[in-house]
Parts: sequence; structure tokens; C-alpha cells
Amino acid sequence: MFTDGFWAERTRINREVTLGAVYHQTKTTFRFEAIKGKWTPDETRYRPHVFWDSDIAKWMEAASYTLTTHPTDTLQSQLDDIITRYEKLQAEDGYLNSYYQQVEPDKRWSNLRDLHELYCAGHLIEAAVAHYEATSDRRFLDVMCRYVDLIESLFGLDDHQLQGYPGHQELELALIRLYEVTDEDGYLKLAQYFIDARGTQPHYYDEEATKRGDKPENFWAKTYAYNQSHLPVREQTTAEGHSVRALYMYCGMADLARLTGDEELKQACLTLWDDVVKHKLYVTGALGSTRLNEGFTSPYDLPDETAYAETCASIALVFWAQRMFLLDPDSRYIDVLERALYNGFLSGLSLDGSRFFYSNPLAGHPAIDPFNMWSPVLNTSGKTYEREEWYDCACCPGNIARLIASIGGYFYAQHDDTIYVNLYGANAVQFNIQDSPIRLIQATNYPYNGRIQLSVDVDAPTQFTLALRIPSWSSSSSVSVNGEAITGEITRGYATITREWQQGDVVEIDFDMSIQRVRANSKVRHMAGKVALQRGPLVYCLEEVDNGSELTAISLPNDGQFDIVLGEDILEGVPIIQGSAYRQDTSSDMLYTTQNLELNQIKVQAIPFAFWANRGSGEMRVWIRET
Amino acid sequence: MFTDGFWAERTRINREVTLGAVYHQTKTTFRFEAIKGKWTPDETRYRPHVFWDSDIAKWMEAASYTLTTHPTDTLQSQLDDIITRYEKLQAEDGYLNSYYQQVEPDKRWSNLRDLHELYCAGHLIEAAVAHYEATSDRRFLDVMCRYVDLIESLFGLDDHQLQGYPGHQELELALIRLYEVTDEDGYLKLAQYFIDARGTQPHYYDEEATKRGDKPENFWAKTYAYNQSHLPVREQTTAEGHSVRALYMYCGMADLARLTGDEELKQACLTLWDDVVKHKLYVTGALGSTRLNEGFTSPYDLPDETAYAETCASIALVFWAQRMFLLDPDSRYIDVLERALYNGFLSGLSLDGSRFFYSNPLAGHPAIDPFNMWSPVLNTSGKTYEREEWYDCACCPGNIARLIASIGGYFYAQHDDTIYVNLYGANAVQFNIQDSPIRLIQATNYPYNGRIQLSVDVDAPTQFTLALRIPSWSSSSSVSVNGEAITGEITRGYATITREWQQGDVVEIDFDMSIQRVRANSKVRHMAGKVALQRGPLVYCLEEVDNGSELTAISLPNDGQFDIVLGEDILEGVPIIQGSAYRQDTSSDMLYTTQNLELNQIKVQAIPFAFWANRGSGEMRVWIRET
Repeated sequence: MFTDGFWAERTRINREVTLGAVYHQTKTTFRFEAIKGKWTPDETRYRPHVFWDSDIAKWMEAASYTLTTHPTDTLQSQLDDIITRYEKLQAEDGYLNSYYQQVEPDKRWSNLRDLHELYCAGHLIEAAVAHYEATSDRRFLDVMCRYVDLIESLFGLDDHQLQGYPGHQELELALIRLYEVTDEDGYLKLAQYFIDARGTQPHYYDEEATKRGDKPENFWAKTYAYNQSHLPVREQTTAEGHSVRALYMYCGMADLARLTGDEELKQACLTLWDDVVKHKLYVTGALGSTRLNEGFTSPYDLPDETAYAETCASIALVFWAQRMFLLDPDSRYIDVLERALYNGFLSGLSLDGSRFFYSNPLAGHPAIDPFNMWSPVLNTSGKTYEREEWYDCACCPGNIARLIASIGGYFYAQHDDTIYVNLYGANAVQFNIQDSPIRLIQATNYPYNGRIQLSVDVDAPTQFTLALRIPSWSSSSSVSVNGEAITGEITRGYATITREWQQGDVVEIDFDMSIQRVRANSKVRHMAGKVALQRGPLVYCLEEVDNGSELTAISLPNDGQFDIVLGEDILEGVPIIQGSAYRQDTSSDMLYTTQNLELNQIKVQAIPFAFWANRGSGEMRVWIRET
Repeated sequence: MFTDGFWAERTRINREVTLGAVYHQTKTTFRFEAIKGKWTPDETRYRPHVFWDSDIAKWMEAASYTLTTHPTDTLQSQLDDIITRYEKLQAEDGYLNSYYQQVEPDKRWSNLRDLHELYCAGHLIEAAVAHYEATSDRRFLDVMCRYVDLIESLFGLDDHQLQGYPGHQELELALIRLYEVTDEDGYLKLAQYFIDARGTQPHYYDEEATKRGDKPENFWAKTYAYNQSHLPVREQTTAEGHSVRALYMYCGMADLARLTGDEELKQACLTLWDDVVKHKLYVTGALGSTRLNEGFTSPYDLPDETAYAETCASIALVFWAQRMFLLDPDSRYIDVLERALYNGFLSGLSLDGSRFFYSNPLAGHPAIDPFNMWSPVLNTSGKTYEREEWYDCACCPGNIARLIASIGGYFYAQHDDTIYVNLYGANAVQFNIQDSPIRLIQATNYPYNGRIQLSVDVDAPTQFTLALRIPSWSSSSSVSVNGEAITGEITRGYATITREWQQGDVVEIDFDMSIQRVRANSKVRHMAGKVALQRGPLVYCLEEVDNGSELTAISLPNDGQFDIVLGEDILEGVPIIQGSAYRQDTSSDMLYTTQNLELNQIKVQAIPFAFWANRGSGEMRVWIRET
């Protein structure tokens, strides 16, 4: 669907590089070998791991989305081969988990709290749904339906059932996707059970630990808030614990509220949303202030260097924001989605598509690596950490691939006769309004430029509403149809145009993309006295390669002017911010002084945060002191 | 020796409160019970612990110093009782360790790396030396000499000996103290062995781990730099690892260099000193940037909120600085000693003498507790952490008590006919110069006031040199004798006056105690754009009780004026800094804005850092933004 520009390029690289890189790493780390069901304890090269199924599933999902737009025999046969392995692996009763079936066959369902059993089921379901939607082949969908039928029989409120729920949420939202594609009420009800059972008393994880012979109070994460089971979900008013677990759960809650009309659950979602965006969201759309719990800490606790800011958490925020929009159509959710997408998420991937960040901190310095707790002690390399080709815990690479492969799905939404235009970018897409095909073509250099030309291609004049999202970062905007300005009210963040659209109608949209100085709430103690630069949806940063090291010695004058120049080489065509700044002298070898520090006027250059660490290793900083 | 004022009060509280509090806690935690030698595995109230002997020893040392100046029957009998227990506990062969003798009698000397066996020996030796010096009673000294004789036979370079050394340094400096009181060359040589064996190859801890059946690479601290055995000590040029271990070792190195005239070792001390004071020292004289290794990280890596800044590390810095001065008489060491003493050390103790900080971070906030790694995740109390009555790992309380009880020993030093006046405070002291008694009497309100009157009391006119330390924080100073200004050169930080001193001669000294703004090197990224306030040797801080919460919203205008007022109640007589400042509005509930943040003019009040957290729990901050 992408015609050219930003997303055409990002999706091309995803198809041509990332998808293959993830497949290659998954293979060379024996993850595909592990689903053959032939592992024995004397096999020393690999031992199936509790989350390997999810790694495979995410690749399958990404590959399936790609099949839809760019089918290849290779992808098709790679997927078929994996599906065949899973078909063979599946137990007689429907159970399917490559770790438990081979390594601890007697311990099924004994540690939901820690061991990702239901989480893997969730990802495999998402893969099955994506594969079915891409191919209409039910093979893998049937495998997963059989497994879900088993889970449905085992978990629930009946006395003979386990009253458990996933330690790492994911199955909830997956069951709803499965319900939406199969229309099986049981799957929706099972999702509802998992959402509502969570955090009730007596606490399932207490009982499960005791049954295993463990003391519940020895839970390594120290609090059930870690996996959001500290309270029943409807009573949760603040985002706590592991960010990805939390947001996958919120996705399930939002879906369920939308599908069931459950107002109480919707209210819980709205309350949690507010807590996240008002107290716990990085300016890059990243989440998770510390690696200790890979998650949330206190309100306004947003350190930059040690931000955990897991790529998967920004991905989860994209998922959740989209679902909040579907539950409660308002562009404020898409504003956050766009912030996460273009910053905290995209920074997770190198521009060439081959390397990944697990953490996406808002500052990089050789003294610290937020992903490695011991880094301040052990890092003697003198190098700022960089993206890696792979991780032992490889949740992010596959997650990145599947989001990019499906990114087209976030650009528009249709509700009856209204087409929401949520994201901008050069693309062409088709809708049906009352059985009439409607094609929309966006021509734009967004996100580098705020001008969008949206052409309407209809077979016959058709009455419908275009709801154009007006991004909250745009201080002014104009919309015209066929050259005539539209001056209507903006409702819930959308400029809506209802008319009988004619073939060749052209909507022109212009968003102000002036460079903005963003300041954090004064309660954010790490950002006091600092600004971040933003232009359009892109948050910018200073990098050592452009500005030298010791970036904290740099400050921006409050009244300084900025210019835009276009980047070259690997940053070809990317708007780059240039301006004047001050740099403190760093030549002294005294640690403390009672003198004023000498200031030198310098030029600084800022690039989009998402593109940092693509030109060698070095310092980086989003938040810059303002003087 | 203290006549009145600051140290008369601090030492009185140490005698009347702290010493008793530490004794009480040591007793109620069964540490005294544990040295009876009667523990059996069915005793569930306590199990001797590997570092309990050191806790007892530090109390014994503090009590012994106190006996010298303020003997009481209670202290005497408490000490006697402990000594009797240790006499009985001591094994036939001289071995003495309450943990190994009772809990793991077969595992003596099997884990020097982790289990504090030689460390405890060191503290017991220091206690024995102090007790002997205070009482001339050799009982405990003899116990420890017997133990050291055993250690001397077991450790060394002979094939039949263990080539090991302490995992936690302390024994080295203790052996030198023992040598200085006994004149036994063997003890000096044993110290030298432990210093020189450290970090040599093949690595003893590799071999020891293998012998235990452990893999050396599984060392929990991940690097031998943790305990400074990554290199032979003479090859170490940067301060690494656990701060207290490092500095106790540097003490031993400095002592050894002084006593043996070992120039190479002296040079290693000088190099390490430079690394610490130029790259790794907090403005409060604290050391240790993270709790991960309780120690050093990278140069200029000095976060304030998460500073580990262990009280024991500032104590160790006082020890080391004093020894560096003895090795290389220069006031720069005493400048650092004084900084550590009045700030990073004294903050470890509540003003009433009953509660202790383990960590002494340079900022306090409810979101963080540098002593508890999980605090950003778990602290939902909304309270900034406070001093505690005791710790499971109780190294700091006894260490505080022994330093205050012996603080008088740091005020002066005599070298031939020169008397160095290193610290100032109201006191009276006696020296002998060529068999003539010389009494010096300081009258001053130091550290609250920079004026000192030093009176000389001699039986007959006596020729000697007074070397008066001119603190580096003093931008101007004056010295006069009997009203006549002395204008000589300042040599290595001392104003020296050589003359035939007469009875009643009066030296008047006046140090400028203007309030100073201290700025950190621009490479200290956490302190960029910030200032700390200092007056005389005291570093100041803002506290919530005086200035409200959200202290990072406060900034000091670069040209702002400050006044001094005297404190009341618990801060009676303490100079308090008042001035104008700005406070950003914190009422917004938006997390980010593109607007300027509203600034309100406010009054701020700063108190000495050492005295924070004595008026309830709340935020604190040393480094304040400057605008």
C-alpha cells in the first residue's frame, strides 16, 4: 500500500533485511530445531527455552503479514515448514509448548507466574490468525484452536479447573483476535475469564507457589504488581510493574470493553491511560523507567540515561493506543501512538534493518547501559552501547518485524461511513462505503514535511466522511478541498469533512512543522531545566558524531534560533536541526571549582532520535540543558 | 581534650548515646552471645555470621578510645567481659573466628575471597591495639598476637603456605598498627606479604574457587577489580571496585611506604590519590557511585540521588588522607580529610547520636533509596528514606563510633620540632619538644566561624615551628602572633611560624568563610548546570522541611545574594544560608508542554548537609540548578 517515502522504505527494509535477519538468528540459535520435538538431555547445543515458541510465533506473524503484500515462495515454504513441525509436535490432547513437552513434561501448568507457558500460546495464536488471514489456509489456525480448546477446558471458575492466569499477559488479546476471526464465543469468554480472574483472592500465585513447594513470599520480583496481579484489574488505577505485561493486558481489557460494552472495564482503561500519559511516558513514547522490573516506578520518575524504555513496550503502546482509539475514538490516542511509533519504537531498529535495541534510553554514554545492570561497574570499553544483532531474550527483534509488516493497518480506520485518517504517509488504500469502492491516495513526504495531498478516487460520487487527524504537536494547520479552505470545528482531534466525494477530489492538508522546544512537567526531576527538540512527530537528539563528546556540557540558549538542513549519506533527505549553543570548557582536571565555568559559543546539530547510533558508537542526548 | 564547641558536643554524644546504642544493638542481635562459643545448630535465635567479630571489634575500639579520655567502670567491665569470651573462644593453635569455629569448623581459610575471615582478624587487632594503648593491659593484645602468629605461619610465599590474601582488606593496616605498638618486624613483613601477594598470577582466588569446587568465572561480583585483586597493587593506577576495601588497602600501602621508604609503593599511593580526588570524589567527601559494587564506577560518574556514598567509605577516606599526610606532609590531604569528616562522614549519624545512614546520597527523594536496589520499584511509602537504628550488615555504626572517639588524634601531628595544626576546634593539647612540655589551646567556634585564637602555654621559652593549615576553601586568610601579622609564604598548604615561643603567646588566625558556589567539572554529567553551596568546610543542602517538596523545581540565580542566620532548636547556633531563588510552577498535570514554565521568586534556606534528615523525612538536594 505504501507508494514511496518513509514507510515504503521502512517496510521494504523490513521485508528484505529484518525478516531474514530474524529468521537467520532464530535458526542459528536452534529455536527452529527445538520445535522438532526431538530434544533429549544429551543434546548439548541447545535446550528448548520457555519463551522460544513466542520468538518463532512473532516471526511467523511478521512473515504472514508480509505474504499479504509481497508473497514469496521462500516465505511461504518457511512458514509451511514451521507449521508442519508444530502440527507434529502438538500432543494428542492439543497441548503445544516446545519447552514443557520436551524438557519438563510432568510440569505443565505448574508455574504460570514465571514460565511463559500461556504467553507462548498467545503469540502462537496471533501467528495463526495472521497466517490464516494472509493465506486462508486453516492449518495452523486449527492447531491453535485445538490448543485453545484444551486451555478452555482446563482454566476457569469450576472446581475441577485451574483458577490461574498468565504470568506474562498476551493470551488475553490473542484470544480476542482468535474470537474475531472465528466468531467462537468461547474464546471471548476465555479472554474475559483471564482478565477477571487476575489478582483475585485467594491469590492463585500464592497457591501455585505453595503447591510447587516454594514460599510465595520468595517471589523473585518481590511484588505481584510486577505482573499486574496485585489487584483485580478493574481496581487497578495506576500502571505498575513490567511495562510490556501491563500494556498487553490493557490491550486485552480495551478489546474486551469494546466488544462487550463493559463500561466498568472501559473506565479502568481510561484511568490507566491517564496515569501512563500524565505520569509515566517518556517524550519518545517509551515506557519503563528501570531494568529492575523492566517497568514502571513512581509518577514522574523518568531518568534518561537509565530509562529501560524497552522496544517491546513502545510496540505495546502502539497496540494499546490503537485499541483505545477503537474503544473511544479520539485522536489523543493516535497522538501517543504516533509518538511511540516514530521515536521509542523506531529507534529499536538500525536504519539498515539488521540490528536491534532492547532498551531505548534517552541518553547514551559510555558509563551506562540501561540494559545491563552491571554496566557502570564493568564497562571499561569506553564505548556507548550499540544495537545488537540478537539477544538471548529475543523478544524485541520479532516484535519489531511484525509491527512494521503490519504498520499499514494503523493508518486508517473505518466506522460506518466515516474514514479516519490517523497517520500520514505516501500510500494508496481502498475502502468500501455502502458497497462502493473508495480509493484514497496520500502524496506526502511526511514525517519530514507537514504537507499532505490526499486524492479521492471513486467510481461514482459517494457520500462519506473523512476524519482527518490534527496532530497535537501541530500548532496550526490548514485543510482544503479542491483549493477551498475548510474551517470547521475540530472534534476530538479530527477535522471532519462530510460531502459527496467526486472522482479526483483533492484534499490538501498542511501541518505546521516548526521546531518545538518541549519541556517536561516540573515534577520530572531528571528533566528540570532541560528541553527536548521536536519537529512534527519526530523527537530529536544530539549525537557525539556531530557535536563531540561530553554532551552534558552543551546548553541551548532560551532564545536561540534553529534552522533545518537536509541530511546526507545514511541520513539522506532527513531534516536535521542546526543552531547555536554553548559548551562549557571541559579541559580542567580539577573536579570542583568555585569559579564560573567558561562558556564557548558553538554550533549544534540534532538528528531524529530514532536514527541515533547509526553512524558509529558515541554519546547521545535528547534532553539538553537550557540557559 | 575538646574544651567546648562542635567536637566537645559531638564526642559527648558519642560517649553518652552512640557508644551505648551500638552496644545495645550488638547485644540484642546476639552478636555478643555468638562469641561464647556455645552455638549449636539447634539454636535458632542466632547463628554466628562471618562479619560479626568485626562489629564487636569496632565497638571495642571505640570503647577503648573513650576509656582514655573518659574512663567508666561500665565500659571497663563490658570490655573485660568481651575479652574474656574471646580468650576462651580462641583455639589451641591461636585461631579465632566466631563464625568458622562454630558454624563451619572444617572450612577455615577456604573462601578468603568472600567470607571476611582475615578482615575480622584485622578489626580484632585494631581493637586489641586500642585497648592496650588505653589500658596498658596486654590481655587482648596477647590473644591477637597469638592469632597473628598462626596467620604468619600459614600465609606466605613458602610452598607449604597459602598464597592468599584478604577478600576484604583491613588486616594489612591492622598488622601495621600491631607492628607499631609491638615493634615485631614479623607483623610488618606479614602486612607487606599481603600487600604484595595481592593480584599476582596465578590468581589465588581462581585456585581457591577451583579447590572449593566452584568455577572462578562464576564470581558473583564479576570482576576481581571488585576487591582490588585484578592487578598487583603497584600496577594499580585507578581506584576500582568496592570503595571501603580499596581505601583500607590504600591505607596499608601508605603506611608501608612510609615505614619502609618504598618509593614505588609511595608513587602508587600518589597516583591512586590523584585518581580519587580528580575523578571519583563527591563534593561531600563521599565515595562510591553505586550500590552494585558498593564502589567506584567510571571517572566523573557521580550521580547524586543514587550515590552509594557509604559512611564507611568516608571514614576510610579520613584514615587514608591522614596516612597520606604522614607519608607526604601536605595540607591537600587534610583538605580532603576535612571535607569527608564534616560532610560525607558526619551525615552518617543523627544529631542525637542514635541513628545511622549506611548510604549518604547527595539528594533524597521518595522515589529512590540508593541503599535498596529495588527502591524505585518497591517504595510506595511516599517517604524519603531515613537513618536507621541498625543494619543487618552493621559495619557503619561501630565505625562511626570509633572515628568520633578518636577524632582528637587528627587535629595535630608532630614531626621533630614542627607541630602541624591540621584541624581547628576548641581544644587543649600537650606536646613535648625536646623534653619540654608545650600546651596549645585553641579557642574558636570553628567550623561555624573562621576565627581561631591559639594560645601557647610553655614552662620556658621554647624554639619550635607551628605549621598552620590554610584550608583550600578559604579564599583569604590572616595569621598574626601577638597582634603582629605574619606574611610568610604558604608551603604545601601550611603557614609556618618558627620562633622561640613564650608563655602566653597568642596566634590569631582568620579564614574567610564567605559562602561559596561550588561547580563540578563539566565532565560530571550529573552536575552540569548545577551548584553546591559551601561555607568553610561545610557543604550545604536544601531540605523539604524548609523549602517544600519538588526541590528540582528550584533554581538559584547566578547573581543571587546569600545571608547567614543562626539556626534554632535542633540546629541551634548552626549557620543557615538564606537567599532568593526561583521555583518552577508544579501545578500542571500535563507531562510535556511547549510553553515556557512559569517561574516564581521564592526564598530558600540551606542547612549543612551533615545535618539533613534530622527534622523529619523529606526531600533533600545538595546540587541545585543555577539560572
